[in-house]
Amino acid sequence: MNKDRKQKINEYIQRDPFARFLGANIEILKPGHSRVTLTITDDMINFHGFTHGGVIFAIGDMAFAAASNSHGQMAVALNVGINFLKATTSGDLLIAEAEEQSATGPIVLYDITIRDGRTGELVAKSQDLVYRKKEWFVVEDNIS
Amino acid sequence: MNKDRKQKINEYIQRDPFARFLGANIEILKPGHSRVTLTITDDMINFHGFTHGGVIFAIGDMAFAAASNSHGQMAVALNVGINFLKATTSGDLLIAEAEEQSATGPIVLYDITIRDGRTGELVAKSQDLVYRKKEWFVVEDNIS
Amino acid sequence: MNKDRKQKINEYIQRDPFARFLGANIEILKPGHSRVTLTITDDMINFHGFTHGGVIFAIGDMAFAAASNSHGQMAVALNVGINFLKATTSGDLLIAEAEEQSATGPIVLYDITIRDGRTGELVAKSQDLVYRKKEWFVVEDNIS
Amino acid sequence: MNKDRKQKINEYIQRDPFARFLGANIEILKPGHSRVTLTITDDMINFHGFTHGGVIFAIGDMAFAAASNSHGQMAVALNVGINFLKATTSGDLLIAEAEEQSATGPIVLYDITIRDGRTGELVAKSQDLVYRKKEWFVVEDNIS
Repeated sequence: MNKDRKQKINEYIQRDPFARFLGANIEILKPGHSRVTLTITDDMINFHGFTHGGVIFAIGDMAFAAASNSHGQMAVALNVGINFLKATTSGDLLIAEAEEQSATGPIVLYDITIRDGRTGELVAKSQDLVYRKKEWFVVEDNIS
Repeated sequence: MNKDRKQKINEYIQRDPFARFLGANIEILKPGHSRVTLTITDDMINFHGFTHGGVIFAIGDMAFAAASNSHGQMAVALNVGINFLKATTSGDLLIAEAEEQSATGPIVLYDITIRDGRTGELVAKSQDLVYRKKEWFVVEDNIS
Repeated sequence: MNKDRKQKINEYIQRDPFARFLGANIEILKPGHSRVTLTITDDMINFHGFTHGGVIFAIGDMAFAAASNSHGQMAVALNVGINFLKATTSGDLLIAEAEEQSATGPIVLYDITIRDGRTGELVAKSQDLVYRKKEWFVVEDNIS
Repeated sequence: MNKDRKQKINEYIQRDPFARFLGANIEILKPGHSRVTLTITDDMINFHGFTHGGVIFAIGDMAFAAASNSHGQMAVALNVGINFLKATTSGDLLIAEAEEQSATGPIVLYDITIRDGRTGELVAKSQDLVYRKKEWFVVEDNIS
């Protein structure tokens, strides 16, 4: 992928309003592989005092969206199965990583791990299934 | 369940900081059954301009948490499988409903539907599995 | 749907070799809705002495396949999320029912319940996501 | 784990009647990690002529059950989320592998991959959540 195209895709992905709203930081590590970090604030906890399931899911979803759209082709989530393994709370740093597992045809699978940034322990793990549309938000390599 | 106990449980559930942060409205309809409504704002969309997966999940999770904790017993999510069926965007109203399906022992299952408030169409549908701890955040009926 | 077409679709679905191998009985109740029954034998249990997870899944999958192919259009499973709620064993009768939930475009969602035929209790519950191909194994209504 | 205990656990797991019925071969590679192989026969296909979803799930379930019970402690499946990625058919060899991901407390997560034995391609991938009971079917290490 040429440098200019890579940058345009990254700019498009960085625009994510909900990621900005929460203060999440999104990086594309390489095509199909991304990382998202977020420090949990007092606004992001549930009534039991733990990090909200919606926030844990959200950073996994941001990693997944960055990875699955990193080719410049429009991808939408069909199904996510997430397992919650360890509670965290305000002040904790969460790190989500998404990696492409299989990409035969328009249906693609990603593995997402969400870890406690301090201890490295698994907080949640998910499998995310995506549908790649025949639309490109940044034109294809051989055209650009 | 007596009125006083019901009110204490509701107060506990309404305290959810992330629900307040997003502006979601949580109602317990009856024990094991709840509803959450949220109007999508410009902060809650993804880089494609649609409602963020994390926001859709979050209101489902709020409905699920309200329903599964509505007995006053501490419940934590183990697994959520969510299917995304229809895109929505800023300005749309989402309505999530959670209903208890089976409650034999400490493992309980909920069905969650998330609908477009205007058309009634399914936006997402999930199954959520919960573990009920032996802790009560509002003391049991026969004690109070 | 005309009677002849309905019969051809049913014949196609009844041919399922694995259903025959297990002795499962498949009925299409109406388009998008089906039922499968199976009596568990000594061959269908796991090393703990309970009905094998693979057998429970299989009859849900047969119900799902019958329902999702009941329109005569080729449908393939993308994702299944299944929750196991109650143990059964040899001699028990299991009844699986599949119902279409949403069908906008090629991606369709089904809800499957698997019950103990004697008590009616939930044994398992799943959500199944299907992709409808542009292939018809029985020609379309308006053509036939 | 001492040799005698290891052998007793393996004997218990090899007794799986459904695995024998299908002709599946189960190996414990090490505690928490197992492999199952199965050659697909004409009895194990669906009405479209592909390997039945129930059979693919079953060998993943056998790998999962072997891995999660490999400590001699009774483990039961709570939830499985499976993604189907590639069709196979009669005559093909399937290889399922299960690996323990996280084991804090009684709830344990496994990753399962099911591959085409000839090409190595992913056929399906699942995440399986287990509950470990306080029952041991082979007595604990420090007791034996």
